[in-house]
Amino acid sequence: MGPAEYLQQKKQLIDQTLECYLSQENSPVFEAMRYSVLDGGKRFRPLLLMACGEYFGAPEKLLLPYACAIELIHSYSLVHDDLPMMDNDDYRRGKFSCHKKFGQGLALLAGDGLLSLAFEILAEAPAPEQNPQIKDMIISEIARTIGPSGMIAGQYLDISFNPENQDVSVNQEIALKKTAGLIRVSGVSGARLAGASPVQVEAVEKFGTYLGLAFQLRDDLEDLAQDLSVSKPLRPNLASILGVESSLELLEELRSKAENSLREFKIYSDILEFFIHQIQFQPEKKA
Amino acid sequence: MGPAEYLQQKKQLIDQTLECYLSQENSPVFEAMRYSVLDGGKRFRPLLLMACGEYFGAPEKLLLPYACAIELIHSYSLVHDDLPMMDNDDYRRGKFSCHKKFGQGLALLAGDGLLSLAFEILAEAPAPEQNPQIKDMIISEIARTIGPSGMIAGQYLDISFNPENQDVSVNQEIALKKTAGLIRVSGVSGARLAGASPVQVEAVEKFGTYLGLAFQLRDDLEDLAQDLSVSKPLRPNLASILGVESSLELLEELRSKAENSLREFKIYSDILEFFIHQIQFQPEKKA
Repeated sequence: MGPAEYLQQKKQLIDQTLECYLSQENSPVFEAMRYSVLDGGKRFRPLLLMACGEYFGAPEKLLLPYACAIELIHSYSLVHDDLPMMDNDDYRRGKFSCHKKFGQGLALLAGDGLLSLAFEILAEAPAPEQNPQIKDMIISEIARTIGPSGMIAGQYLDISFNPENQDVSVNQEIALKKTAGLIRVSGVSGARLAGASPVQVEAVEKFGTYLGLAFQLRDDLEDLAQDLSVSKPLRPNLASILGVESSLELLEELRSKAENSLREFKIYSDILEFFIHQIQFQPEKKA
Repeated sequence: MGPAEYLQQKKQLIDQTLECYLSQENSPVFEAMRYSVLDGGKRFRPLLLMACGEYFGAPEKLLLPYACAIELIHSYSLVHDDLPMMDNDDYRRGKFSCHKKFGQGLALLAGDGLLSLAFEILAEAPAPEQNPQIKDMIISEIARTIGPSGMIAGQYLDISFNPENQDVSVNQEIALKKTAGLIRVSGVSGARLAGASPVQVEAVEKFGTYLGLAFQLRDDLEDLAQDLSVSKPLRPNLASILGVESSLELLEELRSKAENSLREFKIYSDILEFFIHQIQFQPEKKA
């Protein structure tokens, strides 16, 4: 089975499990949560968690709740980010954003609900038998990564960004905190659950960080390409500040740094390689 | 030391610890979080957790992080509830609500930050030595209580409430989910951390539920009294639907049910009694 098939299979499992977590009730809050999570989304983060975990030998059953919780957290961040007082986006994944579909009040609550449900799932998730204490460490690491010094700080930098500001470092900090953090902690959580050694965890941490930065830069490039084609005003991003050519160079650099972070410690699989391979700039792909 | 002094001392400790948790950084997000948590708040929920926990013999140090996390969760719910797309309240605890002071975007993020920080603190909190597994159970119970079937469902019922609706049962469900849940789980968490028996936990659960319902009814009565005096339009609440006289009778009934829930199982202390005693209708007190 090639990496694409492997990931396709895992994606189905993740989607089914998410659907199961989100079918507890038929209330409007759950409906808005389901709308925001199901039917769409590449599941990049939970797949990375599963792939890193299985690479180091963790059973699928152990990894699955953590993977799903991470995807719920990612979805919560999108729902809140799309709100008018934040990025004010009317569309997400080719359909109306949550607040356009359900109204701002329900969208706020759906986001809050996704975050709370994620931590309920994490608290109820199994701990690795050989090292049960690692569970608390993983949950606290996830919480810190998405908290007021992490993802939320990145989101604040993003909404308070001055469009005149051509500073590369601020944009890199935003990418690091807002995007790369959750991608990094996905890989790291998988490795930790599998009982990977500190050196291996550190390698995955670097890998996830470069992968996450590349992911964001690719996204910026796609936004820029779309912007040039539809002439819709765009907030300056890393790609627009660097220019397309330098951005593509940087993207290549980040991708090879991601690869080397693993190879340096003799970590290699075609599946992990596939994550790096996926992050390519294909301007026509963005809907 | 009388119950008032005991609780005053614990309140100081809780306030100091909250301040410590919220002083990690000097960013705008942390400033908005500090503004929403510090200087104000009676700390009813964390005090109840500490009091129930110490009644059954848990050390203060074990209880404190859980108590603070509960207060951060309570604060997050207030910050989000005050937003214009929710209750649209400009004032809270005698000062501007978070979004009036910092803007809606930052208030949304401050709420998200408080919730994330609460779960980081819970993940890092110590577990009781005799029964470390109870920690996960407590965290999952807290998450479920504040999640999309609990507090968030209550908040949704509240914002979608039809003012023509004179139905008592909807208002009771709102009070149960939006207010009583977190108060109940505060008491229960304290008891569980102390290793209380299932029967004792059940008694505290009932106690907390009646206490929480009384707490909300008292609040409704105060809102109603304020409404009558300033003739500001008020959404119908349980007190306005029942009328003042019946509400005062129900308040007495809830208070004695709270008391009996404990006495039935020979649980008694002047401190626990004090929580019931505190919930009295004093119309002139609400700022």
